[in-house]
Amino acid sequence: MKHTSIWKMLLAAMCLALLGCLQAQELKGHVSIILLGATGDLAKKYLWQGLFQLYLDEAGKGHSFSFHGAALTAPQQGQKLMDKALESLSCPKDLVPSRCDELKGQFLQLSQYRQLKTVEDYQTLNKDIETQVQQDGLWEAGRIFYFSVPPFAYADIARNINSSCRPHPGAWLRVVFEKPFGHDHLSAQQLASELGSFFQEEEMYRVDHYLGKQAVAQILPFRDQNRKALDGLWNRHHVERVEIILKETIDAEGRASFYEEYGVIRDTLQNHLTEILTLVAMELPLNISSSAAVLQHKLQAFQALRGLQKSSAILGQYQAYSGQVRRELQKPDGFQSLTPTFAGVLVHIDNLRWEGVPFILMSGKALDERVGYVRIVFKNRAYCTQSERHWVPEQSRCLPQQIIFYIGHGELGHPAILVSRNLFKPSLPTQSWEEVQDQPGLHLFGRPLSDYYAYRPVREQDAYSTLLSHIFHCRKESFITTENLLASWVFWTPLLDSLAFEVPRPYPGGAENGQLLDFEFSGGQLTFSQQQLEVLIPDLVSVPKPSDFQVLGAQYRQSPLITAWPEELISKLASDIEAAAVQAVRLFGKFHLALSGGSSPIALFQQLATGHYSFPWAHTHLWLVDERCVPLSDPDSNFQGLQAHLLQHVRVPYYNIHPMPVHLHQRLCAEEDQGAQTYASEISALVANSSFDLVLLGMGTDGHTASLFPQSPTGLDGDQLVVLTESPFRPHQRMSLSLPLINRAKKVAVLVMGRTKREITTLVSRVGHEPKKWPISGVVPLSGQLIWYMDYEAFLG
Amino acid sequence: MKHTSIWKMLLAAMCLALLGCLQAQELKGHVSIILLGATGDLAKKYLWQGLFQLYLDEAGKGHSFSFHGAALTAPQQGQKLMDKALESLSCPKDLVPSRCDELKGQFLQLSQYRQLKTVEDYQTLNKDIETQVQQDGLWEAGRIFYFSVPPFAYADIARNINSSCRPHPGAWLRVVFEKPFGHDHLSAQQLASELGSFFQEEEMYRVDHYLGKQAVAQILPFRDQNRKALDGLWNRHHVERVEIILKETIDAEGRASFYEEYGVIRDTLQNHLTEILTLVAMELPLNISSSAAVLQHKLQAFQALRGLQKSSAILGQYQAYSGQVRRELQKPDGFQSLTPTFAGVLVHIDNLRWEGVPFILMSGKALDERVGYVRIVFKNRAYCTQSERHWVPEQSRCLPQQIIFYIGHGELGHPAILVSRNLFKPSLPTQSWEEVQDQPGLHLFGRPLSDYYAYRPVREQDAYSTLLSHIFHCRKESFITTENLLASWVFWTPLLDSLAFEVPRPYPGGAENGQLLDFEFSGGQLTFSQQQLEVLIPDLVSVPKPSDFQVLGAQYRQSPLITAWPEELISKLASDIEAAAVQAVRLFGKFHLALSGGSSPIALFQQLATGHYSFPWAHTHLWLVDERCVPLSDPDSNFQGLQAHLLQHVRVPYYNIHPMPVHLHQRLCAEEDQGAQTYASEISALVANSSFDLVLLGMGTDGHTASLFPQSPTGLDGDQLVVLTESPFRPHQRMSLSLPLINRAKKVAVLVMGRTKREITTLVSRVGHEPKKWPISGVVPLSGQLIWYMDYEAFLG
Repeated sequence: MKHTSIWKMLLAAMCLALLGCLQAQELKGHVSIILLGATGDLAKKYLWQGLFQLYLDEAGKGHSFSFHGAALTAPQQGQKLMDKALESLSCPKDLVPSRCDELKGQFLQLSQYRQLKTVEDYQTLNKDIETQVQQDGLWEAGRIFYFSVPPFAYADIARNINSSCRPHPGAWLRVVFEKPFGHDHLSAQQLASELGSFFQEEEMYRVDHYLGKQAVAQILPFRDQNRKALDGLWNRHHVERVEIILKETIDAEGRASFYEEYGVIRDTLQNHLTEILTLVAMELPLNISSSAAVLQHKLQAFQALRGLQKSSAILGQYQAYSGQVRRELQKPDGFQSLTPTFAGVLVHIDNLRWEGVPFILMSGKALDERVGYVRIVFKNRAYCTQSERHWVPEQSRCLPQQIIFYIGHGELGHPAILVSRNLFKPSLPTQSWEEVQDQPGLHLFGRPLSDYYAYRPVREQDAYSTLLSHIFHCRKESFITTENLLASWVFWTPLLDSLAFEVPRPYPGGAENGQLLDFEFSGGQLTFSQQQLEVLIPDLVSVPKPSDFQVLGAQYRQSPLITAWPEELISKLASDIEAAAVQAVRLFGKFHLALSGGSSPIALFQQLATGHYSFPWAHTHLWLVDERCVPLSDPDSNFQGLQAHLLQHVRVPYYNIHPMPVHLHQRLCAEEDQGAQTYASEISALVANSSFDLVLLGMGTDGHTASLFPQSPTGLDGDQLVVLTESPFRPHQRMSLSLPLINRAKKVAVLVMGRTKREITTLVSRVGHEPKKWPISGVVPLSGQLIWYMDYEAFLG
Repeated sequence: MKHTSIWKMLLAAMCLALLGCLQAQELKGHVSIILLGATGDLAKKYLWQGLFQLYLDEAGKGHSFSFHGAALTAPQQGQKLMDKALESLSCPKDLVPSRCDELKGQFLQLSQYRQLKTVEDYQTLNKDIETQVQQDGLWEAGRIFYFSVPPFAYADIARNINSSCRPHPGAWLRVVFEKPFGHDHLSAQQLASELGSFFQEEEMYRVDHYLGKQAVAQILPFRDQNRKALDGLWNRHHVERVEIILKETIDAEGRASFYEEYGVIRDTLQNHLTEILTLVAMELPLNISSSAAVLQHKLQAFQALRGLQKSSAILGQYQAYSGQVRRELQKPDGFQSLTPTFAGVLVHIDNLRWEGVPFILMSGKALDERVGYVRIVFKNRAYCTQSERHWVPEQSRCLPQQIIFYIGHGELGHPAILVSRNLFKPSLPTQSWEEVQDQPGLHLFGRPLSDYYAYRPVREQDAYSTLLSHIFHCRKESFITTENLLASWVFWTPLLDSLAFEVPRPYPGGAENGQLLDFEFSGGQLTFSQQQLEVLIPDLVSVPKPSDFQVLGAQYRQSPLITAWPEELISKLASDIEAAAVQAVRLFGKFHLALSGGSSPIALFQQLATGHYSFPWAHTHLWLVDERCVPLSDPDSNFQGLQAHLLQHVRVPYYNIHPMPVHLHQRLCAEEDQGAQTYASEISALVANSSFDLVLLGMGTDGHTASLFPQSPTGLDGDQLVVLTESPFRPHQRMSLSLPLINRAKKVAVLVMGRTKREITTLVSRVGHEPKKWPISGVVPLSGQLIWYMDYEAFLG
């Protein structure tokens, strides 16, 4: 999620595109809407109805319309199927039936089936539209192609539209796609670039129908219209948590072939729940009717998402699922699917507004109820002096305070917006939202309905109707731009990859799930609240777990060796460092700690940052063992890792932080800037006897340590405390503490982790003192202590 | 709360003292206990009973005792009064009545009244004890003097004990004091140093009887015995809030003369609630039976307390109070007391364990119920996947999780420790704590009693009995050491001073208080939840409030002037800076901000740190306008203020922070170290055209700005960008941006606040461009914009 400049370029391009869109919109004329897949399920269920609604809303306003239902089916049979779909069009309740019948007649007349298969079919369609427009004495405003077809069909259709069915340059083209938009970042990118070769960004409308659901579509307007009340509340000081929930009672039966390929995260979290997340979390633009501003702020929200770890999620699978897959996909008897049908994910947002606020995303099939909602729970910031018996629900600030965007279903049975009465009275557009009648006995989110200001839409409207209207009105903020899509996949793909072989917890389904799927978080990790009771797939989980082992103490190169699973190893090392720090501060008032860069220490930094409350940071000096000759702000800089994973989370005084001066006078490691000498004299001045209290080292697969590489002409012996060296890897130039300086330390810890270290670990265990060949073998503290910390993979392979 | 070295010295002294105490304790012999004020209320109510209990507990273990009731009253009458007090001694329930009668007889025989008035009286007492010990063939172990007398009598008694009644060197002396221990930090210090001239620290036992209450005394043992469960929970990641509450139903009637002088904060918060706070917050020593370790950790907890602001507290006064004061203190009819009888205080602890966790202290008279408790409320870290209807109270992690040390009274009616069953099953010593029987219908803290593991003492014991035993056993951790006392006053005195003229909110008393006293916090400030409905003392509050004014826009020295009340002024300036930052980052990708030191900007820093979530800190470079030639870590350093109030709270990358290099090569501002030149070239290298985006200046009463003082030979003109200057104030040596550099800025904001600036503000408004006389008059940006920000006091006087 770096590459700010690329983001900016993309944003700029998008803005230009939108500008074009708005200008085109003002002109009126003939609009052709081509529904591809006109006889499919989605069309039958939602799209024709949505088009009819669009016609009802817009026909009177100056545009003329034609509706082309299209499919691969031959004309006659296709027309029959389509007529069947059109039969069931219903009239909105607020329209006089006779008037509706009249309009419905018009709509049916304007709607015709057409087979679209070959390039000629598209050419014919193009000619027909042009002819008709001319005949009617109109001019063409634009064309909408709605792709209600499977993704594999996209490319052909897109090619045909682009080559043979674009309107003339003065009119607009809009193409509408339905998910799935890829399977991961790579496939989404491929699909996007393929479509991008046929269409401009401003021509494409990717539908996430949740953005058309009334409660979801109201999130930004609600935030905007209640700015005054929310301004001080909508941040980490006041929000305790945000829950974004989508529970289904149905399972995947009959859809196993689709579901088995996607799973719950791709099916609902990557799209619906993520979109909702950004609507809640984004900075609110001054003008929410500016699509460009909304989309820009949404993208920025993506940029602030903290990367997900494997431990950010818990997975479940209802017990009948694997059987359904076996049946529907003709899998062998023993087949067990790993596809999750339930997931809980903990998302954190690394900006000042949301830092530390858990965003809980949860979705699953075969659960106990069907319901969707976003729930913002506020912290209790009040103390109520009177005893509880005297609390007044409408006013007491000690009762729960929450805002809920209720997407639908559940006990309420309709979309709603709920605001705790002890919070504030919200402002909502009265023509479209009305107060909900109280239903005595109905409890929602821990409180009776009467405890909320509760609103529901005056007229319930299907998401597709809303979105078709937004397509027509060019409201791009209700759709997924390419950048938005890729940002979402950038966020989700690493998690999906890391979970690919994870065994989901089995659950019986429905109310019987009990508390089996309850989960909780601690320090960024999610875990099920209940221990798993029985292991259903013993073969897959019988690999040893960390808890099966103890931290082992032994010897390596005549020095103490501590070996364990990674998590425990890091935890032990962190405790040892803290103990050393506490002792040094007690004896000398300060603790001088020199840290290596690289990836292994990152887990250590995180452990120190989150698990060690008594660490005497205020009296700790942090030094670097080595540094790459890049600016400190470069992502490759060791210092940058230290800053991101440790310094941002603890309170080390500025002047106790000692980055290596690799960037002096705007140059990198120039000999004449004497950076190494400067660092050496800083060490001599501040560290008694230049003897660090603790030096943390790593070991490379070539036996290097610090930035002291085999055959290095400097740093392996001699008087220099700090040296410039050359690495065989980029960036080549390095600054490093020298072996003689390292060996003056009171304690040296060498951390070695991962299977790739196995060979060098074995080798180094056998060699003598040969620093020229294996610099690590030269780590022999003069009077201090050396301890090796190795995980099982490095040690046992 | 600095001066670490003094703290350390004090701690060392204390440890030595305690060592002496423990050695002495092992020897057994005769112990004399002299109760001064033997016929007073406290003695009658608690102390004699406590001494009897001590006798029951200890008499059989090898010591011999004598009890001397003492007072100023003549012997005969005194003996009569004392006998009356002794008549009501009761026997513990678990002692056979006949055995108790026997022991009571012994106790009465050992207890004699004696007048202690003159120095001769003390000499006689001394001789009598020695004689008796000799006659009985014993040796003397020690003497306890219990000062149950008003503080004004302390000095005389202490002098007499010290001069004439000390035991011989081999025996110990313990003197016991009752609060009040002073009225503020100064008076507490005076009292402490006076007592310190007569007694050693290890001889003194200051009683806070809350430390003897069973639920309070159990806090540390509970934390110790449940270490495993609490280890991961007892920190900011898991604790949502801590409430330390002491509610009384009675009012101050009959005690107005005492109460009027003290008020609720001195009466209960400074002592009882603060002691409890430290027991909850302190780092748990490895060995809690080490008094030295406990006291040391307690002191460290004090050091971590964030200083209180006036806005950290809300005050109330029951409506009848002023009338009671008028009657009892013969005040005139119109007299209105400002003494608070109710207070809520929000305490924050600035360490990694507790950062951000609100500790709510509340105490008051004439409230709706009598109850005391400490309540630790845990964050809800769980999501329960099943609908609420299926939650199981004993297990569901979504129901409240709390630990309550119930001090007594209230609906439960006895001391107790409650732990939510969905948290963990606590371990308590079974010989002294037993499970509470369920009382169906009883709700505590939002949940039925059955939702808790609930324990009560097997035998309820009065606090004084416990404390007398602790005095006898030399358990100093149950008492207030001098350091502890002064640390508490250091914490409370600034708040008391700032609230001295605050009008407390009137409340009717009892259940009628309704929600009038509910309060809430936001950003470190406490406010009543309800607006005050009527103003009872209009004269005192009719001074204009910030909300009565608008931010005024005008001109000053031909530049825009913004003037407002301080809070709004700072808020406007912060918004203006953010706007400039957002614009600069949008246009150039970074924002160069140069900040002045001093006290006015601190409020600005705090405002920026807590109220501006969209501030682009990651792209902001921070520079110093001027610096004192002291190490960056010196409290006088401008950088230190910036670090404490801004940098610790926002995420500015390390390499975007540019402190002035006033401390190079371990020297301060040596010409030859070329610090000014180094800073100048850093500016030239990083800031385009050396033109800062915004420079924030102040103005001194002598017309100085930055560290450019009148008649300065450098910095007022010429080519130098950064200069060394001399201040008329200590520390004299300074480094400063020069006027020519300042004037290259795109924006210059001058912040002027406070009444003391009135004169110079008037003067400077009239003078021309005379930087030699008034350096501020030389601030004339070449092409940038100058804006003056003045509060009403600076501008209008």
